[in-house]
Amino acid sequence: MPDDCIFCKIIAGQADADIVFRDDQITAFWDHRPAAPVHILVVPNKHIDSVNEADLQDAELLGKLILKARDLAKEQGVDERGYRLVLNVGPDGGQTVFHIHLHLIAGRRLPVFRE
Amino acid sequence: MPDDCIFCKIIAGQADADIVFRDDQITAFWDHRPAAPVHILVVPNKHIDSVNEADLQDAELLGKLILKARDLAKEQGVDERGYRLVLNVGPDGGQTVFHIHLHLIAGRRLPVFRE
Repeated sequence: MPDDCIFCKIIAGQADADIVFRDDQITAFWDHRPAAPVHILVVPNKHIDSVNEADLQDAELLGKLILKARDLAKEQGVDERGYRLVLNVGPDGGQTVFHIHLHLIAGRRLPVFRE
Repeated sequence: MPDDCIFCKIIAGQADADIVFRDDQITAFWDHRPAAPVHILVVPNKHIDSVNEADLQDAELLGKLILKARDLAKEQGVDERGYRLVLNVGPDGGQTVFHIHLHLIAGRRLPVFRE
């Protein structure tokens, strides 16, 4: 793990976070600056800087991030009302932590893109 | 395929779209109401209403949507500047077509969630 990766530290239990799920492949925790009533980050335990650096062999892991976010949406009781899953990549995408993380955002009606 | 699914019709060549990629698992085409200079929808050929209805056996396919969107970002020359990948689910998420589609949005600096 890179020494300066805050998400690697959270996954390793070396930095605090409000963990909601953890197994040998994925860790999920609440965003510390939530953009909505439900805002959870679903993160692969394996360090990958961004989607740009993912390999074809990571496909199943990336898909599991989506399915885990879906499961967490159900746990939070927002699956019927709906939610948004977002991966930000690079400067234009607004990526701030360079360890892949899927945002689960829910609990309010989210704006459509073109607004 | 459901009779009324516009994305199934596009995949089957029965409705028009500006296709940018097609193989036996995935079809990608330009959003007809783009929210940014690059706005491509990456769609599984298999009909799945939304992420809520995906199964664990769909994990690899879902991950391949992400990797294909990344490849298309590279083709469009926006991978370095960055991009956003979005899955909308249900009413709060702003989902309007009920066939899973991953939005690739790029070509301008995208707003952070909390703005």
